[in-house]
Amino acid sequence: MNKVFIATSLDGYIADKEGQIDWLHSIPNPENDDMGYNKFISTVDALIMGRTTFETVLSFGIDWPYEIPVFVLSTTLKAIPEELQEKVELTKGSPKEILEMIHSKGFDELYIDGGTTIQGFLSQDLIDQLIITTIPVLLGGGSPLFGTFDQRLSFQHVRSSRYLDCIVQNEYLRKKNES
Amino acid sequence: MNKVFIATSLDGYIADKEGQIDWLHSIPNPENDDMGYNKFISTVDALIMGRTTFETVLSFGIDWPYEIPVFVLSTTLKAIPEELQEKVELTKGSPKEILEMIHSKGFDELYIDGGTTIQGFLSQDLIDQLIITTIPVLLGGGSPLFGTFDQRLSFQHVRSSRYLDCIVQNEYLRKKNES
Repeated sequence: MNKVFIATSLDGYIADKEGQIDWLHSIPNPENDDMGYNKFISTVDALIMGRTTFETVLSFGIDWPYEIPVFVLSTTLKAIPEELQEKVELTKGSPKEILEMIHSKGFDELYIDGGTTIQGFLSQDLIDQLIITTIPVLLGGGSPLFGTFDQRLSFQHVRSSRYLDCIVQNEYLRKKNES
Repeated sequence: MNKVFIATSLDGYIADKEGQIDWLHSIPNPENDDMGYNKFISTVDALIMGRTTFETVLSFGIDWPYEIPVFVLSTTLKAIPEELQEKVELTKGSPKEILEMIHSKGFDELYIDGGTTIQGFLSQDLIDQLIITTIPVLLGGGSPLFGTFDQRLSFQHVRSSRYLDCIVQNEYLRKKNES
């Protein structure tokens, strides 16, 4: 199963016009509520992310935050920093090729992250679960979560959760028997 | 107070690439649940809509559905059909000018409808309440609810409601003391 767990603004952006994500933390979170992140992470066994997301994580200057194997999609990156070579693998190809390769390594429950990567998988109808956390701010522009593609994709709503008295998270599953 | 009550696809469109809204009715609704519409309508005393929304309503070929006065924003329409002249008034101008004119007629609780009109009001920070009903389908393109504008606008989440086991409606109020 291919899963998305991501936060967007009320107008559907994952980064603002300057590529910043500070607004993700605009709601006070004194007890560091993880808003379901650790529970979600426990349901996946590998992560596929795009180069931009990878470089954003590196830019945080924190310890590498993932315990599961991470596959970074890039046609331009040449190498992974040495200290991450056991944790991160560079890959490229179509979503289907990448999935075949990762499935062949025994990973089936996959966290798909990053706008371009998610859009690529959605355009091939390869996303099964969407968990979207909506931050109640209109950014007025930025990098959209969803891109354009040809076919309509119907989902089933599974649950709504509300965090910090302000942030709504919805879980959807792809309805495969319909368009 | 200026209020929005509108349905969007999961990817934020109010009409699909062909301008169609059939997907709004893709979820079976055997008992004609109004999903809060009549309750909402009881909170407003006039409606401001754009020309496209007006023409869409006319195209339904049904009886005029609004009991409250409707103001249609258009720079191109010359006249309102005769049978609607007591119910509909053509107007033009900036959002602020239009609000002044409508307030002077004694209407203060206003339903703002139509993508272009909503975007015009939002760009001037003139929307106080957003009630957004999310249909669980990705359209992959179409007319977006939200447009681009300069300043960030923060909202307070008021409630989530779930209809027909599938459709989530969220209500937000503008937080005027913050950006």
